[in-house]
Amino acid sequence: MAVVQITRIVRFNAAHRVYNPALSDEENQRLFGKCNNPNWHGHNYTLEVTVEGAVDPITGFVVNLRDIKQVVEREVVEHVDHKNLNLEVPFMAGTIPSTENFVLGIWRVLAPAVAPARLARLKLWETENQYVEYDGR
Amino acid sequence: MAVVQITRIVRFNAAHRVYNPALSDEENQRLFGKCNNPNWHGHNYTLEVTVEGAVDPITGFVVNLRDIKQVVEREVVEHVDHKNLNLEVPFMAGTIPSTENFVLGIWRVLAPAVAPARLARLKLWETENQYVEYDGR
Amino acid sequence: MAVVQITRIVRFNAAHRVYNPALSDEENQRLFGKCNNPNWHGHNYTLEVTVEGAVDPITGFVVNLRDIKQVVEREVVEHVDHKNLNLEVPFMAGTIPSTENFVLGIWRVLAPAVAPARLARLKLWETENQYVEYDGR
Amino acid sequence: MAVVQITRIVRFNAAHRVYNPALSDEENQRLFGKCNNPNWHGHNYTLEVTVEGAVDPITGFVVNLRDIKQVVEREVVEHVDHKNLNLEVPFMAGTIPSTENFVLGIWRVLAPAVAPARLARLKLWETENQYVEYDGR
Amino acid sequence: MAVVQITRIVRFNAAHRVYNPALSDEENQRLFGKCNNPNWHGHNYTLEVTVEGAVDPITGFVVNLRDIKQVVEREVVEHVDHKNLNLEVPFMAGTIPSTENFVLGIWRVLAPAVAPARLARLKLWETENQYVEYDGR
Amino acid sequence: MAVVQITRIVRFNAAHRVYNPALSDEENQRLFGKCNNPNWHGHNYTLEVTVEGAVDPITGFVVNLRDIKQVVEREVVEHVDHKNLNLEVPFMAGTIPSTENFVLGIWRVLAPAVAPARLARLKLWETENQYVEYDGR
Repeated sequence: MAVVQITRIVRFNAAHRVYNPALSDEENQRLFGKCNNPNWHGHNYTLEVTVEGAVDPITGFVVNLRDIKQVVEREVVEHVDHKNLNLEVPFMAGTIPSTENFVLGIWRVLAPAVAPARLARLKLWETENQYVEYDGR
Repeated sequence: MAVVQITRIVRFNAAHRVYNPALSDEENQRLFGKCNNPNWHGHNYTLEVTVEGAVDPITGFVVNLRDIKQVVEREVVEHVDHKNLNLEVPFMAGTIPSTENFVLGIWRVLAPAVAPARLARLKLWETENQYVEYDGR
Repeated sequence: MAVVQITRIVRFNAAHRVYNPALSDEENQRLFGKCNNPNWHGHNYTLEVTVEGAVDPITGFVVNLRDIKQVVEREVVEHVDHKNLNLEVPFMAGTIPSTENFVLGIWRVLAPAVAPARLARLKLWETENQYVEYDGR
Repeated sequence: MAVVQITRIVRFNAAHRVYNPALSDEENQRLFGKCNNPNWHGHNYTLEVTVEGAVDPITGFVVNLRDIKQVVEREVVEHVDHKNLNLEVPFMAGTIPSTENFVLGIWRVLAPAVAPARLARLKLWETENQYVEYDGR
Repeated sequence: MAVVQITRIVRFNAAHRVYNPALSDEENQRLFGKCNNPNWHGHNYTLEVTVEGAVDPITGFVVNLRDIKQVVEREVVEHVDHKNLNLEVPFMAGTIPSTENFVLGIWRVLAPAVAPARLARLKLWETENQYVEYDGR
Repeated sequence: MAVVQITRIVRFNAAHRVYNPALSDEENQRLFGKCNNPNWHGHNYTLEVTVEGAVDPITGFVVNLRDIKQVVEREVVEHVDHKNLNLEVPFMAGTIPSTENFVLGIWRVLAPAVAPARLARLKLWETENQYVEYDGR
């Protein structure tokens, strides 16, 4: 049975500050530079959500993307779009909002929510020259 | 011996309707929504064809991309460009033209045709926010 | 008073056939080639809608883009997305659905609908290598 | 003497809130919706800076782009990259940081700074679906 | 009679060196820096060719793009693709191959060749962050 | 411990000629066609450098991208940007500058230089329709 992957791309924007409250101001500045600006900065994020599975012979689909879109909207976009990642996003509470931690946070909420489809990979672009990927390993 | 992957991207456009003739009109509408329009709709498709192998020390190539381009043109593009996927494409006959089935159909014609190069992956974009991948698993 | 232009981009897809019913089949084929396929073909269209005016000192906006988005959705996207441009689109009735005529049809419905904002330019991409522009001249 | 335009593109990111302090919270919310989030949000901005003039027969250039890049870096990017447009950008003080006002603010600092080259147009992308243009009219 | 613009995009690559043989080596290095490398460097160029006119009621076209594509292929692409702009391109002979002079050279060969269509604008991308435009002024 | 991948994209341009000095001129022409032009041609290359590892709880980073950027600049970009791949690039000496050999050459210099981060994948675009990938296999 062929295993096919299908990906939906969503876009949102948010503010954040890369900052570890357990460190001194000097140490934060040394590690994170201008990303540590206490007045915040922000990004247009692009998120690629990949699920995989066998193709259903009735629909020709691995999964109805309409359902995936609703899940991603409800579990991710509504919580992060036009928000502050340090202050307002439940699944980011207590973590440094680096792109790495952001993708792991999204994985934690999406992996159970897309079932029975299997979440295969997330790819999160922070700028057009930088992205992070995670596949559940 | 290093295994390198090389990808060629081609573009074409086609009409289709996501529709299962074994189901009632109501069921088709419920499952496929506006993609089920009996008057058709269409897309600009982008196809990424990836082959892999060792690098030939005489040419520096895994395979001469000129040959891959000719194969993809002859086996895929000529059959689908400016065509109707439901009515006119031999390798799609009898299948629902979802993106998943489309990529599986392209794999069936390309995998033998690119030999002795090994087809490693297909990535088919239906819109700029949606793509399907298959690697032969 | 500075005149600023603001542009909103929307995307949709549709089927069409470039065909003039007043001409013979041979003449249609000679003029339009594979774009004349009677089984249709289709595209992902990208439409850039530009309006212009002075900046409102209360809002900082030429116009609230939320309003422009609603107008474009209601007047254009709902009528063309996942549709057949030859058979189903009221503002295209009686015209050959070339990209040029398509952009003129969209202008006719949008120019009055965006008032009091002034429609300054439409740019319609049919493929990533081809677009048409109209500015009301 | 032919007049040629040359454009340099730069990218930066920033936080902002679309908010008019002269209005009530309710009125700000009604006008600006989620863009009014008091915890900020942000964007990756793309700025296209176009200058024009005759081609210098010694260099083949309208202007040495190396000089334009330095001017844009010094006058714009250093003041806005990883900054808060409401709180930290001198040329935005006292204005609502809409994209329209942002492009007018950049024009005010760049037009004299690129002389003797003539600033012909600014195009500022806030998201990949939205941009503002100004040409000095 | 509405005036519509239609644009065709072509891509090619070439080698060049920005160098004025009338200047000393030191002066060339000071003006052109690494672009003056005597061992050459190169680019993937993207050229947008815009023609304009009234829409023909028989075809719905300003001009049949098939004809424009052939003209651009024959007059430009065949002479520059995989070529050296300093050594091999007839319409660049005797000029410094800056992007500005390149676009003016292309204009000189294309403007008469697209007649009776009217060449309205050329836009030539040298990198994804830099482009030159000319409209015949 | 989750393994996350992070990618940095850099861009540069270079001249080259696909040519094997051990073969006759006729054989080079037959194999490489216009890519064998003795007057060179060139490309804008885009390189995606992916490293992977566990997320450091102090920084939220797999690795500080600032360090990766410096390494890629020093080990790759400085040696290839605005250069001739056949004549001037130490790590390409003695190899045919195909995209395949170019990516293998970059791997050889980057893999030790990014340590202790682990180089996971390189993706090198030669044109917007062609790329090569290598992951160390």
